[in-house]
Amino acid sequence: MDHLFKQSITLPPNLEPGLRAALTHILRHPGSMVRPRLVTQMATAYGVETSSGDDLAIALEYFHTASLVFDDLPCMDDAMARRGADCVHVPFGDAGAILAALALINRAYALTWKAFAGCPHTIQADAMEYLEQRLGVNGLLNGQSLDLNYARQPRGRETAERIACGKTVSLIRLTLVLPAMLGGATRREIRLLERMAMSWGLSYQMVDDLKDLLQTTAESGKTGARDLHLDRPNIALAIGVSAAVARVTHLIRLGDRMLIRLLALRPALGFLGALRSDLEAELSRVSDKPCESTGSWER
Amino acid sequence: MDHLFKQSITLPPNLEPGLRAALTHILRHPGSMVRPRLVTQMATAYGVETSSGDDLAIALEYFHTASLVFDDLPCMDDAMARRGADCVHVPFGDAGAILAALALINRAYALTWKAFAGCPHTIQADAMEYLEQRLGVNGLLNGQSLDLNYARQPRGRETAERIACGKTVSLIRLTLVLPAMLGGATRREIRLLERMAMSWGLSYQMVDDLKDLLQTTAESGKTGARDLHLDRPNIALAIGVSAAVARVTHLIRLGDRMLIRLLALRPALGFLGALRSDLEAELSRVSDKPCESTGSWER
Repeated sequence: MDHLFKQSITLPPNLEPGLRAALTHILRHPGSMVRPRLVTQMATAYGVETSSGDDLAIALEYFHTASLVFDDLPCMDDAMARRGADCVHVPFGDAGAILAALALINRAYALTWKAFAGCPHTIQADAMEYLEQRLGVNGLLNGQSLDLNYARQPRGRETAERIACGKTVSLIRLTLVLPAMLGGATRREIRLLERMAMSWGLSYQMVDDLKDLLQTTAESGKTGARDLHLDRPNIALAIGVSAAVARVTHLIRLGDRMLIRLLALRPALGFLGALRSDLEAELSRVSDKPCESTGSWER
Repeated sequence: MDHLFKQSITLPPNLEPGLRAALTHILRHPGSMVRPRLVTQMATAYGVETSSGDDLAIALEYFHTASLVFDDLPCMDDAMARRGADCVHVPFGDAGAILAALALINRAYALTWKAFAGCPHTIQADAMEYLEQRLGVNGLLNGQSLDLNYARQPRGRETAERIACGKTVSLIRLTLVLPAMLGGATRREIRLLERMAMSWGLSYQMVDDLKDLLQTTAESGKTGARDLHLDRPNIALAIGVSAAVARVTHLIRLGDRMLIRLLALRPALGFLGALRSDLEAELSRVSDKPCESTGSWER
């Protein structure tokens, strides 16, 4: 999958050297590629052509990567490192990072187009609308804006979950639902996949929030977690560690109910069981971590 | 056309207030709308359905507007005012401007999709590839990057024209060529439109460059033009005023040759004559301006 990530955008010979360097930096540092692998597995389960599944997988990974490049900018999260390397803006400047991210987005839409092209018109229209909703002002962009303006919002589970739904869950929904749409999944299957993606997506973000809180606290010499320090949205901070663990457990169970129904309709989705088990394993690893006090996180 | 610009993106009730304010600011300040009007005229001439023509017109105007929002950022041109109002980042911050521009881009791709949807598959594929080329690393993004890194490049006509081709001409090509593509124009027509768009697009940029140089110089108390001061690419600076005027005149004549052939093939394109006359009128207005000396600009 890494080679597809690297090779799915062609850099022309006359490309301005700074933009070329910024894009090359991004393409040389792919992430875990867990999303694109999942897209191709979903595409196979729904009988989507391999080339369309690959195009969609890379498109979603380019959208995701671009969102991280923007997210890391000094005017947003002001991060320094990503995927084991410098953030793009560190060596190539904010403008270089922005233009490189826009190049990925431009390529991602073209790849999505190719992935959709063989489908009947009504499926294409539904899939395009779904993509627009998840990436735009109803999805990822709203989540990012809520995240950046977290200080102005009421603290609590609802705010933290709204932000997670926009930022994290949007891309997980695209990963699980779009390949099924292209493969002609029934409305019932789409609805079940949607609910499973939302349960798992939120769980995934909550496990991440728990990790941030518990793993950093366990390290000696640090007085608190990064999210706590930087006043970042964190569900475990919002409702407390034990309530967050209970909420993840509940969401995983909710996802299970959808998965069981989905497997009855489409046994080829069996591979999703492993994803669910990984999530639970992560949860038990993080919730078994020693933790001196949860009092200060309850608010 | 202004109402379509304002109404073609729906802001959901739960949109984060900062992002809503930034987008509302953009939508309340449309530009001259010369491009979208041209798209609908081209679409009519090629028998494209009105709704598809409108969708494409607004899509291209959203792409254009987003490119200006990015262009104005402190890390790029660091501008303060645009379209008679503050630049978006001035009241809403860099992050607000970036997210609002991305929302326009996301909507623009969805509108483009709708505009293409009724066309035969081969036309859709050609049009999508054309859009990707003009907006991406072969077009607008490369032009913007060349512009930002102008200081590192050799001075001269070639560099200035390469930047203009990427930044300005890309969108003019999309404006003139995409509606014709959707309307099933022949390869010959597309080729003629392409060459006309490139001639006129470059002329348009050069007239702008001449204006920058001559109109500011003509004002008393100012020692030079903005492009000269800020070391920005300017064709009249690169080759001198009289050579630039001669080059524009040559390019307008080149465009005329294409226009005559196009009119023989499709008389409904007659409205393009007005565009060409406007360009020449602009040129004579600016080149008749008094100008004390061109010596210092020749380099």
